[in-house]
Amino acid sequence: MDNVVKNILNTVADISEEPNTAHNIRVNGKSQSRRSTENIEIKNKENGSGIDIIVKPGTKKELVHIPVVIENSGIVDLVYNDFYIGDDCDIFIIAGCGIHNDDRHLTQHDGIHTFHIGKNSKVKYVEKHYGEGSGTGENIINPVTVIHLDKGSTMEMDSVQIEGVDSTDRLTKADLADDATLITKEIIMTSGTQFAKTDFQIELNGKNSSANIVSRSVAKENSKQAFYSVINGNNQCNGHSECDAIIMDNATVKAVPDVTANHIDASLIHEAAIGKIAGEQIIKLKTLGMTEEEAEEEIISGFLR
Amino acid sequence: MDNVVKNILNTVADISEEPNTAHNIRVNGKSQSRRSTENIEIKNKENGSGIDIIVKPGTKKELVHIPVVIENSGIVDLVYNDFYIGDDCDIFIIAGCGIHNDDRHLTQHDGIHTFHIGKNSKVKYVEKHYGEGSGTGENIINPVTVIHLDKGSTMEMDSVQIEGVDSTDRLTKADLADDATLITKEIIMTSGTQFAKTDFQIELNGKNSSANIVSRSVAKENSKQAFYSVINGNNQCNGHSECDAIIMDNATVKAVPDVTANHIDASLIHEAAIGKIAGEQIIKLKTLGMTEEEAEEEIISGFLR
Repeated sequence: MDNVVKNILNTVADISEEPNTAHNIRVNGKSQSRRSTENIEIKNKENGSGIDIIVKPGTKKELVHIPVVIENSGIVDLVYNDFYIGDDCDIFIIAGCGIHNDDRHLTQHDGIHTFHIGKNSKVKYVEKHYGEGSGTGENIINPVTVIHLDKGSTMEMDSVQIEGVDSTDRLTKADLADDATLITKEIIMTSGTQFAKTDFQIELNGKNSSANIVSRSVAKENSKQAFYSVINGNNQCNGHSECDAIIMDNATVKAVPDVTANHIDASLIHEAAIGKIAGEQIIKLKTLGMTEEEAEEEIISGFLR
Repeated sequence: MDNVVKNILNTVADISEEPNTAHNIRVNGKSQSRRSTENIEIKNKENGSGIDIIVKPGTKKELVHIPVVIENSGIVDLVYNDFYIGDDCDIFIIAGCGIHNDDRHLTQHDGIHTFHIGKNSKVKYVEKHYGEGSGTGENIINPVTVIHLDKGSTMEMDSVQIEGVDSTDRLTKADLADDATLITKEIIMTSGTQFAKTDFQIELNGKNSSANIVSRSVAKENSKQAFYSVINGNNQCNGHSECDAIIMDNATVKAVPDVTANHIDASLIHEAAIGKIAGEQIIKLKTLGMTEEEAEEEIISGFLR
């Protein structure tokens, strides 16, 4: 692996070498390193469209890395990764995608990740997106995440778009059985003329199912963001959606939650707040000796933490 | 005026006779009583589609009544009422529509009310909707309210759907100039197989403009409600939208706010909460000696106050 790949792996997946964990490292549209373990099998799909990750029932405290790096300008990469997670598991999956683009060509990664999560299993899933390079070609990352949560299972999903992604269209769909829980936290930062769209579609089908969707974003300069979130409460359930955005400069942010109670025991709450950094906060930090820029930086990093 | 008309006027407009105020009472699709005053002229539109209400600049503390009653089953009534309110006014407008339907025919009133509100004027606007009668014909009321708020003006709009309206599709559109304020409070109760849709479309175009949209609703039995609210912050402005709904029995409620900040000094907040009456509240009132039904009644009437 060259240094560009190593640096990106470090940024998006906290690894710099091939890890000892179950993993698949995809570089420029091809698998560059792969390892299965006793409990976690990673294998190509028969039709060649991606990989299947099969986790044995009862697998606990194991880590899976499936990062993607593109360093050749002009690659448009589409991959299907399907996770089959048995009952009673407790695993940690680190995905993430980085693009290094030094040329003029549009470079794109669309990862379609489907999770079949078994009964009483617990999955923590972290996904980081990042772009860099001196080229003028656009960096595009369009992740699709489909989550099927069986009875009593939990998915905790953190997704972070760090910087350098010109356009992203993110779709997360989930259906929840009885006693299942979905917790997602999304952090998005855009600048320049970047565009970010994010779309959650949650079906709370199970009795005592619950979803908590939190989005925090900062839109700088001329960037645009749109947040959509559909939560349907179809049983006794709890749904909460929260979208907080800071706008700066000429940026625009749109928030469109869509909550529907189809059951008398569905309890659904949405909150959204969009605005600029409060002047008082900046003044307070300036009296502590910071410049205006340092104060803004401090407030934003606190907000996105 | 017969007793049916008198009773409905009392319910929707707090009058039982022809009032001394500027007014137009429309019964079964025709003007039954009208009065202009020195400052407020009410006249037919030339094309016969409705009335113009012209308020002289500087008119203060005057009341206008424009209620509508339909007591003949099968009437489908469409009327355009345009308000031209001069600068520096302070007036109170009471609209309202009641249908008494004793037969099998669909009976409908669609009132399209357009307000041109002059600089620094203040308008309070109350609209009540109500249906009654022993017939099986549907009662439909589809109000459209279009509000143009000039610099420094204020519109405070209260709309209440009391009961007996089988279907309603309510659209409220507003555009606000500098320093203009819109405050709306909507209360909707549905039961049986009733359907209520409400749709706000607010353009905060002016510097220091503000909108506060509050909707409180109760959906009982098999009724369905949908709340949509678009707020676009196009300048330094404040927008707040709040939708609280109680569901009972097999009712469903959908809330879809849509807030967009197109300006760095736009501050927009949305809140929505949908759920049933909390069990603890009922238990508390039962320990005070109420039956379960009385406790529910008490909680709902407090919620809708």
